[in-house]
Amino acid sequence: MSRAWNFSAGPAALSAEVLMQAAEEMLDWHGCGMSVMEMSHRGKEFGSIIEQAEADLRELLVVPADYAVLFMQGGAIAENAIVPLNLLGKNNRVDFIETGSWSVKSIKEAQRYGDVRVAASSRDETVKQGKYTSIPPVSEWRLRSDAAYLHLCGNETIDGVEYFAWPELDALGVGNVPLVVDMSSHILSRPIDVSRFGLIYAGAQKNIGPAGLTIVIVRRDLLDQAHPLCPSAFHYRTVAENHSMYNTPPTYAIYIAGLIFQWLKRQGGLAEMEKRNIAKAHLLYETLDSSKLYVNHVKHCVRSRMNVPFFLRDESLNETFLEGAKARGLLQLKGHKSVGGMRASIFNAMPIEGVHALVDYLCEFEKEHA
Amino acid sequence: MSRAWNFSAGPAALSAEVLMQAAEEMLDWHGCGMSVMEMSHRGKEFGSIIEQAEADLRELLVVPADYAVLFMQGGAIAENAIVPLNLLGKNNRVDFIETGSWSVKSIKEAQRYGDVRVAASSRDETVKQGKYTSIPPVSEWRLRSDAAYLHLCGNETIDGVEYFAWPELDALGVGNVPLVVDMSSHILSRPIDVSRFGLIYAGAQKNIGPAGLTIVIVRRDLLDQAHPLCPSAFHYRTVAENHSMYNTPPTYAIYIAGLIFQWLKRQGGLAEMEKRNIAKAHLLYETLDSSKLYVNHVKHCVRSRMNVPFFLRDESLNETFLEGAKARGLLQLKGHKSVGGMRASIFNAMPIEGVHALVDYLCEFEKEHA
Repeated sequence: MSRAWNFSAGPAALSAEVLMQAAEEMLDWHGCGMSVMEMSHRGKEFGSIIEQAEADLRELLVVPADYAVLFMQGGAIAENAIVPLNLLGKNNRVDFIETGSWSVKSIKEAQRYGDVRVAASSRDETVKQGKYTSIPPVSEWRLRSDAAYLHLCGNETIDGVEYFAWPELDALGVGNVPLVVDMSSHILSRPIDVSRFGLIYAGAQKNIGPAGLTIVIVRRDLLDQAHPLCPSAFHYRTVAENHSMYNTPPTYAIYIAGLIFQWLKRQGGLAEMEKRNIAKAHLLYETLDSSKLYVNHVKHCVRSRMNVPFFLRDESLNETFLEGAKARGLLQLKGHKSVGGMRASIFNAMPIEGVHALVDYLCEFEKEHA
Repeated sequence: MSRAWNFSAGPAALSAEVLMQAAEEMLDWHGCGMSVMEMSHRGKEFGSIIEQAEADLRELLVVPADYAVLFMQGGAIAENAIVPLNLLGKNNRVDFIETGSWSVKSIKEAQRYGDVRVAASSRDETVKQGKYTSIPPVSEWRLRSDAAYLHLCGNETIDGVEYFAWPELDALGVGNVPLVVDMSSHILSRPIDVSRFGLIYAGAQKNIGPAGLTIVIVRRDLLDQAHPLCPSAFHYRTVAENHSMYNTPPTYAIYIAGLIFQWLKRQGGLAEMEKRNIAKAHLLYETLDSSKLYVNHVKHCVRSRMNVPFFLRDESLNETFLEGAKARGLLQLKGHKSVGGMRASIFNAMPIEGVHALVDYLCEFEKEHA
């Protein structure tokens, strides 16, 4: 068996250690005679798995007690509707910051449920490759103090733009407006102060676990403003009151996520992951910046540590580049079809060795094609 | 490693053969260097997995070409809202047949989206243990010929009531009304004529695969009557047009379901599964009926082949019964909390040997406590 370096943007590489444990436990979990996949979600075995997973996630992210942690389904795209269905039932005004493809998707879906204002956008038509390379200055955000919430995308997976500072809503005169953040592609990559957010959501398939699981962390005072047509299975209060078991949860995905939370704790937690992620991103961006062949257009201060899009200045080399990469076991480097070029996703499970392998290839390929 | 006989109602027992293959392929699927969990859903590897899974499911169920097969998320409880959100956008009248706990759940959720009529109910307050033991005679169904659809639950997992004949809607004067059936707990247990249904849905965690995957089979002419607030991720036309990849699908659950479809084909397909399921159910009901200790209240002609609820006439023996069962590796026999008693779920993956083991225990326990 040989494992490749997998730069997929999601579903993405997972720790081999976790996969080995899952394979070993596949037919008989802890001597109970069943696979985790075969357990009733109401039984004590799965009960212990989901409780431990929630406790570990709370510990890793230091989630305050007045926040519910929900294990849901449908990913970020479902949440684009589920969030407004849950939060716009009483007051339907919502402000958005547009910084890339994912915030645009969220904006479009929310327009079906509420009065949406794009309070700021960094879309730049003059950029040829990708239209988003920055975050609009907070001073230019046209926020409404009577909005039900302010939504932003913490890390734009396609465009490679990441927030490293969160807006100071008090200072902006909207201290009462809950901040909702799509953290799908950078949750667990560094410590965050959960108390600054009203709601955080994340599809699992980048830093949490398998596709099909969505995590929502929501301040409990926001549980009671749902639209009357919000489906019960996606109603946050209902899900919270039933400890994520109003409907049958994606049990195996929760189990794998739980193994990953334990793996993260063994690595040293999120402060350690942040150190490693900074080192990995630094190495890769340094290589791109010192090259004449590769280019990344994103402003340095908001360059994503998780998703590094880049372009070959000579795009006729794209196919050759990808073939050579694959031959070396460097997989899934093709950029998103909407922007083209290349993209290296370097989530928690990608070790620095994988980035070194990529950087070595980048240098050699450039030398060959200089 | 020892495997128990697992009678869980879902998530339920899976074929050990399938689990072994999954364990073997966990770190490196077919030499590609990645786990199925780590594959981009847009890549050719996962593309081949989902295409094969759909093709095998279509072959097993003989799904006509004018039906879309959708891989979705949220289970039957989410579909209780998603179906009306998709089908009641133009005409909001929907008729239901009430035959147990699951049809009641569907009715309650649909009431939030449309004009619901319970066209018939078999609820019987005189039954002490469980209130549903039959299906109302078709002649008594008060159906509306202008309903957007007629909904029924093909197999009531909690009450153990199953349809073996589908209503002849033409003969009932409602031939134009699409029949929608929740087949969560008996899909793939026997051949069905898909062309008789407008829409079939099923949570995976009984006969299909792991929890977190929902299968919807829908006639394509029903794709255009969604409510404007139906979330895009759950909008059947959107899901169909994007080959179940509008949002990231639950990739690993689809892979396991695909392995199960192949296992079913190796067993001889649904005609063979039906034979086995009849034999298993016959053995178990015979044992209950010839006993003085155990009782099943369901009318013989609608007794479920998948879920066999039963009661000990002396309910003070319940705990002793369950403890003895567990000691023999007969797991998850406790009845649903809403009806009490016992329940043996004997889905496709439960071999006749498991039912023999249960029957042996039933007889010995009765002898001991006569």
